[in-house]
Amino acid sequence: MTRLLDQIDCPADLRRLSIEDLPVIAQEIRDEIINTVSKTGGHLAPSLGVVELTIALHYVYDTPPDRIIWDVGHQAYAHKLLTGRRDEFKSLRQKGGLSGFPKRAESEYDFYDTGHASTAISAGLGMSMALELKKAPGRVIAVVGDGSLTGGMAFEGLNQAGELHKNLIVVLNDNEMSISRNVGALSSFLSRKLTKKKVYIAFKKEVQNFLRTVPGIGENIIQLVRRSEESFRGFISPSFLFEAFGFDYLGPIRGHRFNELLETFINSKNLEGPVLIHVMTQKGKGYRPAEKNPVHFHGVGAFEVKTGNSRKQTQTAPTYTEVFGQTLLEMAERDEQIVAITAAMPEGTGLFSFRERFPDRFFDVAIAEQHAVTFAAGLALEGFKPVIAIYSTFIQRALDQIVQDVCLQNLHVIFALDRAGLVGEDGPTHHGLFDLSFMRFMPNMTIMVPKDENELRQMLALALDLNGPVTVRYPRGRGTGAPLEKEIRPLTLGQAEELRSGQDVLILTVGTMVYPACLAADTLAGEGINASVINARFVKPLDQELIINQARIAGRVLCVEENTIMGGFGSAVYELLVEKGLSDIRVKRLGVPDFFVEHGTQTELRQDIGLDTAGIHQAVLGLLNEK
Amino acid sequence: MTRLLDQIDCPADLRRLSIEDLPVIAQEIRDEIINTVSKTGGHLAPSLGVVELTIALHYVYDTPPDRIIWDVGHQAYAHKLLTGRRDEFKSLRQKGGLSGFPKRAESEYDFYDTGHASTAISAGLGMSMALELKKAPGRVIAVVGDGSLTGGMAFEGLNQAGELHKNLIVVLNDNEMSISRNVGALSSFLSRKLTKKKVYIAFKKEVQNFLRTVPGIGENIIQLVRRSEESFRGFISPSFLFEAFGFDYLGPIRGHRFNELLETFINSKNLEGPVLIHVMTQKGKGYRPAEKNPVHFHGVGAFEVKTGNSRKQTQTAPTYTEVFGQTLLEMAERDEQIVAITAAMPEGTGLFSFRERFPDRFFDVAIAEQHAVTFAAGLALEGFKPVIAIYSTFIQRALDQIVQDVCLQNLHVIFALDRAGLVGEDGPTHHGLFDLSFMRFMPNMTIMVPKDENELRQMLALALDLNGPVTVRYPRGRGTGAPLEKEIRPLTLGQAEELRSGQDVLILTVGTMVYPACLAADTLAGEGINASVINARFVKPLDQELIINQARIAGRVLCVEENTIMGGFGSAVYELLVEKGLSDIRVKRLGVPDFFVEHGTQTELRQDIGLDTAGIHQAVLGLLNEK
Repeated sequence: MTRLLDQIDCPADLRRLSIEDLPVIAQEIRDEIINTVSKTGGHLAPSLGVVELTIALHYVYDTPPDRIIWDVGHQAYAHKLLTGRRDEFKSLRQKGGLSGFPKRAESEYDFYDTGHASTAISAGLGMSMALELKKAPGRVIAVVGDGSLTGGMAFEGLNQAGELHKNLIVVLNDNEMSISRNVGALSSFLSRKLTKKKVYIAFKKEVQNFLRTVPGIGENIIQLVRRSEESFRGFISPSFLFEAFGFDYLGPIRGHRFNELLETFINSKNLEGPVLIHVMTQKGKGYRPAEKNPVHFHGVGAFEVKTGNSRKQTQTAPTYTEVFGQTLLEMAERDEQIVAITAAMPEGTGLFSFRERFPDRFFDVAIAEQHAVTFAAGLALEGFKPVIAIYSTFIQRALDQIVQDVCLQNLHVIFALDRAGLVGEDGPTHHGLFDLSFMRFMPNMTIMVPKDENELRQMLALALDLNGPVTVRYPRGRGTGAPLEKEIRPLTLGQAEELRSGQDVLILTVGTMVYPACLAADTLAGEGINASVINARFVKPLDQELIINQARIAGRVLCVEENTIMGGFGSAVYELLVEKGLSDIRVKRLGVPDFFVEHGTQTELRQDIGLDTAGIHQAVLGLLNEK
Repeated sequence: MTRLLDQIDCPADLRRLSIEDLPVIAQEIRDEIINTVSKTGGHLAPSLGVVELTIALHYVYDTPPDRIIWDVGHQAYAHKLLTGRRDEFKSLRQKGGLSGFPKRAESEYDFYDTGHASTAISAGLGMSMALELKKAPGRVIAVVGDGSLTGGMAFEGLNQAGELHKNLIVVLNDNEMSISRNVGALSSFLSRKLTKKKVYIAFKKEVQNFLRTVPGIGENIIQLVRRSEESFRGFISPSFLFEAFGFDYLGPIRGHRFNELLETFINSKNLEGPVLIHVMTQKGKGYRPAEKNPVHFHGVGAFEVKTGNSRKQTQTAPTYTEVFGQTLLEMAERDEQIVAITAAMPEGTGLFSFRERFPDRFFDVAIAEQHAVTFAAGLALEGFKPVIAIYSTFIQRALDQIVQDVCLQNLHVIFALDRAGLVGEDGPTHHGLFDLSFMRFMPNMTIMVPKDENELRQMLALALDLNGPVTVRYPRGRGTGAPLEKEIRPLTLGQAEELRSGQDVLILTVGTMVYPACLAADTLAGEGINASVINARFVKPLDQELIINQARIAGRVLCVEENTIMGGFGSAVYELLVEKGLSDIRVKRLGVPDFFVEHGTQTELRQDIGLDTAGIHQAVLGLLNEK
């Protein structure tokens, strides 16, 4: 049976359909998304939640010249299916295949590459302003989740948009979730929970006071008003917030009803200036398992369509995330100064159990990385030990706060950077390839990188014992399967470990590259080359003595890291060896080169760059063959 | 005549005074601030604006255990005078003297070190949460300017504060300015300009609709209401915004009236949960020249008290800021794709004339660096050439947006980083010492550093001709006096220049250190040492060929930069030389060591670190004396 979807190669084809066909298309798109993501994995629940919204947007607006910007971008699967990428859709998130996010390189219908939250209003305002300046046709539509609104830069964008008063349509995709359930005063406001709250009461009082000033309205009317609680609810609508920022507000409308969506979008075309359209959607809509558990199905691996169960994993080692969460929980049992902070990702960062066990010492600050860091600084100043668990790529949002609020005051804040290095299928917006470089230039900062999940535990223990800012960065995915020692042996600050001893060459490495380096050393040994392998453990401070001694013995040093080579671990080693005047030592770096790495599996991406056993082996041979 | 102020060594002394004495103290504090700042320079207008506010805070609240956090911190002079630093006040902003900002190291009354905007709510919330967790007494009072509220992280803080519902007092110091006049929808909202605007109309309509639903109110009442415009004004107060975020709202009150301040602060003590106190103040209050020109007197050099006129400058060269502003204006006359963006500092960044000449192509986005960068990305995508003029220290706020929105999409956005390097009296929160390190690790980025103001013009011309992201970073203060060529000779991408030729040693440098390096080379020549001096111009990409050739000839290389040595220009040179296997070349770096640099004049600070002619001379001798 042919699908309607198969006749749609671009939005213009969609617009030729009748309104009655749209629910059919919606079902076909849902099926296609569920089937594909069940094999490739991906952001299922966000994309299922906006199927009707996406169809309606392309049906009403003229793309291009109209431009849709998908904030974060993990909800753009239906958009991809409607914009000429139907046949490639099965390649989603696979190397060389479609990206899981909007990509200008993929399609003329992708106008802005996204990946991190809260950028679409700012980018959309810039584009809208540009269209006006160059007198070009076209509207800009920024589709923004309610979670993304908690990010401060969304407010910065609203603030300027309201003042400039240019045409900009913000579609607020309100599903009451970011990745986890939304937090913060704003989310209560959007969901109107505050009808029972303070604002409501204050408002009622003001209305009453006002009524008293109007001649001819007596106490009896006020009494009446007092009893008309239901009628008051309409007053305290989210419209006030956005109208205060200078936006016209339309909504809230039901985001899975085509009639409401189409009517509202058509109406929006007649408005001048910034408009906010408030659309209520359900994450995971149309797929029961995802509706029931939208957090799990936010970003999901391969699964069985029928049950929603994950396909069997062959690996059984725990993930770094799990070990982090469990270890922090253990430590928090013994040390009540420990508090944990997440920016809207209690599940993703492994803090779920911590939240259950210590609700008073757990803080989900919403998608608000800047605030997270400074909030932690406040806690640290009063004697607590805040641990901020956050993905490496997202801590980039808080560089200034780490420098100014934490390092400058030399506060004991621990940064647990998950998903450091190459993250795989999420691609360039999500790789954590810069943290070693930017954490390293901050005075007072200590940086550790564990070689396996047991060492992660040891590093966390040390991090909590130190003073001042500490970073522990670890990769996405499962550990090496290293046995977890029940008793955590404390590491010594700045002490590296020598794992292989040899005099021909030194492989100096940290984190994910330590085991591959050891395997490469084994291969080299079979070829008659004796390599030392040092697990540096600390990128800052370096174990200068061990490194210098072993470098002197070997004469040739290869530094290996899963971070950009610009200013990272290898550069730190260069700085050390050069400063010490060890000019007779030949040293090279292996790391992520100075370009953005696309998506693929972690294994594929590491292999491409040479960040694996074979790559290290080759690099050592190259180094030894140099004159 | 003895002053009351001379009897106050701590806030407890202040609290012993009668309310009638407070205006006297206020006048004495104002006189002290004006007299001192007229000699030392400093943030005059902000501090004059909060004299009564500061007195009232310390009079009512019990500091400590109560804690006051001064957002940004440039308004804390009266606070310093009341907290035991009266006699040291004359050392303000001088090396070894009082900092111009709150400093925990200075006083037990300083609870949080600030310098950048919008952090106080987050820090205060963390402290407040900590006090509750440890069951310690004390309130936290965050004093935040209305300008700071435009920074997104302030909203992130409000959002969590409203949800946690802990005791936190936010004093909104509303002077309708950040450094320049405030912009953005929020500022209209605070100043109630929108009584005539959309919100008001929408609101009125809703009230009318509501009244229709109340039995017993007929059309005649609605007509009445319609005519009672004045009475409605009270409805649309800023209170709604903050109450929507879960705050109790008190105000607005007049911030130079002790009775209003005291009464409101005393009332706030009885409230549970977060409270926002809206205080209207006047920047520069009590000093006529500062009241008339608060932008000039925001941060000011030494001046004559009687007239407000600046004391004579001995230097006459234009500042880098002026040359940047003038050059961009010239270029914008010829190229209408050029647009300029500032984050609340049109004067500070030299864009004042640009704004006058091209109001449609000029954007002040408020204190919103994150938004500024992504807004620029949107403009660049549509074919414009956005130039973001911003201080080096503030661009730290937007690291993630530069990586994700600009570099990943390889967009042609120009970052004009003013105040890079050591800025002098503003100290560690304002030095721009990391930009070379973090801009350098971003793929696709070009980085230039001019040796003088004429080269700044050449670099701007090249920056606008290139594609992709470009950074030009230049220092605070006056140029070298280099003649400004009328016709701008274009530089060639990646081409350094050799300024001195010699075979004994190579001094490889950029920016502010180029002329001192030449002078050091002159001194060395007198000692029989022939030094090459290369002005690298480009930190990325390096002029590999010239550097390698000259390094080979000289055999010894000193890299000099006004940036942290961790991952900066010198590290880039190490990376190059080591990768090329030039192990017989001895190379050293001179730059800012891995610690935070305190305040002092630029000359003093550079001298301390050895970043001047004498320091370079010494470093070269040291390098040559190495075995």
